[in-house]
Amino acid sequence: MNTKEVKAYGTEAKDKDLEQMTILRREVTPTDIEIEILYCGVCHSDLHTARNDWGGTVYPAVPGHEIIGKVVSVGSDVTKFKIGDLAGVGCLVDSCRECDSCRQDLEQYCLNGSTGTYNSKDPFITGQRTYGGYAETVVVDEAFGLHIPENLDLKAVAPLLCAGVTTWSPLKHWNVKEGSRVAVVGLGGLGHMAIKLAKGLGAEVTLFSRTPDKIQDALDLGADAVIISTYEHEMKEAAGQFDLIIDTVPYDHDINPYIATLNISGTLVLVGYLGKMEDMLHTVPLILGRKSVAGSVIGGIKETQDMLDFCGEKNILPEIEMIKMQEINEAYERMLKSDVRYRFVIDMQSLKRQVG
Amino acid sequence: MNTKEVKAYGTEAKDKDLEQMTILRREVTPTDIEIEILYCGVCHSDLHTARNDWGGTVYPAVPGHEIIGKVVSVGSDVTKFKIGDLAGVGCLVDSCRECDSCRQDLEQYCLNGSTGTYNSKDPFITGQRTYGGYAETVVVDEAFGLHIPENLDLKAVAPLLCAGVTTWSPLKHWNVKEGSRVAVVGLGGLGHMAIKLAKGLGAEVTLFSRTPDKIQDALDLGADAVIISTYEHEMKEAAGQFDLIIDTVPYDHDINPYIATLNISGTLVLVGYLGKMEDMLHTVPLILGRKSVAGSVIGGIKETQDMLDFCGEKNILPEIEMIKMQEINEAYERMLKSDVRYRFVIDMQSLKRQVG
Repeated sequence: MNTKEVKAYGTEAKDKDLEQMTILRREVTPTDIEIEILYCGVCHSDLHTARNDWGGTVYPAVPGHEIIGKVVSVGSDVTKFKIGDLAGVGCLVDSCRECDSCRQDLEQYCLNGSTGTYNSKDPFITGQRTYGGYAETVVVDEAFGLHIPENLDLKAVAPLLCAGVTTWSPLKHWNVKEGSRVAVVGLGGLGHMAIKLAKGLGAEVTLFSRTPDKIQDALDLGADAVIISTYEHEMKEAAGQFDLIIDTVPYDHDINPYIATLNISGTLVLVGYLGKMEDMLHTVPLILGRKSVAGSVIGGIKETQDMLDFCGEKNILPEIEMIKMQEINEAYERMLKSDVRYRFVIDMQSLKRQVG
Repeated sequence: MNTKEVKAYGTEAKDKDLEQMTILRREVTPTDIEIEILYCGVCHSDLHTARNDWGGTVYPAVPGHEIIGKVVSVGSDVTKFKIGDLAGVGCLVDSCRECDSCRQDLEQYCLNGSTGTYNSKDPFITGQRTYGGYAETVVVDEAFGLHIPENLDLKAVAPLLCAGVTTWSPLKHWNVKEGSRVAVVGLGGLGHMAIKLAKGLGAEVTLFSRTPDKIQDALDLGADAVIISTYEHEMKEAAGQFDLIIDTVPYDHDINPYIATLNISGTLVLVGYLGKMEDMLHTVPLILGRKSVAGSVIGGIKETQDMLDFCGEKNILPEIEMIKMQEINEAYERMLKSDVRYRFVIDMQSLKRQVG
């Protein structure tokens, strides 16, 4: 496999800052496109991977799976893209394409294991991990490349590729449409996209927040109402209201109070917290209301394209704060304090301008 | 309200045996039918109510919500039934008929509270509870009466009205059809009906059992396979197999091992255990497989009729053991030891023959 060196930003160990490094990218194969990266969103998974919070990180690690750029070269068999096109890459760069899940456009649930955009085994370069979007370029099979609607403000598109589709996928799977009653738990990168996308689909949208300081922000983002989950009377009044609750909270929390606010046949879908739930789940509200507790992760490629096209039509974009590549370590610290409204995006020009 | 006295079997206190008593039934109103009860199934709820295991029992209590009989009188406005028709009554005798649930034929989830066949407030006779099918007759609004397919062996039909529809409803709601892969946890009154109904719908059906002694029974009932849940290698091999798991176990148990056997987008639906789940639910398998944990209770009237008609077409019936009314206390003791294959049915002629 022919490779070339490109500049990137990554880390050599869990307790080290990210810094500039050189990585190898493969030359395009017949079905590949090479993308010059313009913007890369900063996801909590980037931070967790850099610091090995989930275990399993192999170093050096180069995060970034909300990638937006321009196609700069294409393989001989590429049909979906041409040089100069805008292109995006999300959380996945490959899957088996043959299993039941892949045949249903559910590459995120590939039964043979999909290839993540970073920290997966690189199928092309022996002994190397996949490296994400904190880099000058990325090379990806065109099947995993995404078209970006031309009308969208390119600087803000990147977070759609993870935060966007992570909330879009459950909204679509659980059939949210005009008049659906949707609630969102937690107002961060995922939560703010859940509000915008659910509103875009015509739903009535409520935010659950632990404190009143998020009320104005939520309303500004389009929410119809905010329920303060620590106010017992507000929770009581909300009983039986929601068809779907998207729970974006990334740490363990008691979901029983939210289940009480589901309508008959309603579903609470967890997209944020990976782990055991310490609070005992009570089956009575599930059984006597045909309610469900479910989970969902990112989305498939077709679904991601559908979401991008939808955002193009409705001009839906995340709220972002632009940073330079060199500010990433500080940005991680701010994310840990929830000090970001609502997603950092790296202007990748900053990596080029750096002396390499 | 005009009433008349009928013979019944009930209990005056939680620690007393059931014994013969006299209760009041209303005379038929214009929309009522009066049914002479021929058979009544014995559900675990009967026992729990008689002994106040769930709290809330008001005495005297007359259980029985799997009622089969013959129409002996009809109100002036009745159109669905005529004298001499077979008729059934299940777990519900009324609901508000106006709420979102009722308008969707989901009377079991009536938002204003449905009226149970026993131990609910009687809407007609002031100060009295509703009394169930351990009695000579029952009077019910024709909207809550069910037609019994003439070809079915009448002695065995009764358990369809609770055990049958309790498993039928989730099979239909979660869209089980030809080729679906369904598993059933627990082989009792509910479990054996789940196997028969899922097979009737064309599914591949597997029983999860804790011990091998149920294998032959399950295969005889139509199951395609049995997995012994205490054998680790069998559970491991079953990973990712099932579209729907119907969990009929009536006591607290760890559902995490069963969730591992769900296919992508699969659902485990609890129909047996009402209470808190002590084992912590792990969100990772839910999120990484878009799996759900849900609950479901009995079924609506239209759905119950659909199930009866389906059982008529396919000649599906529960396995029953016939008892006399006077044997009910002994039957309860046997149920507590799971010594019944798979449902007791009371021959209500035995109540008539008793000196009253």
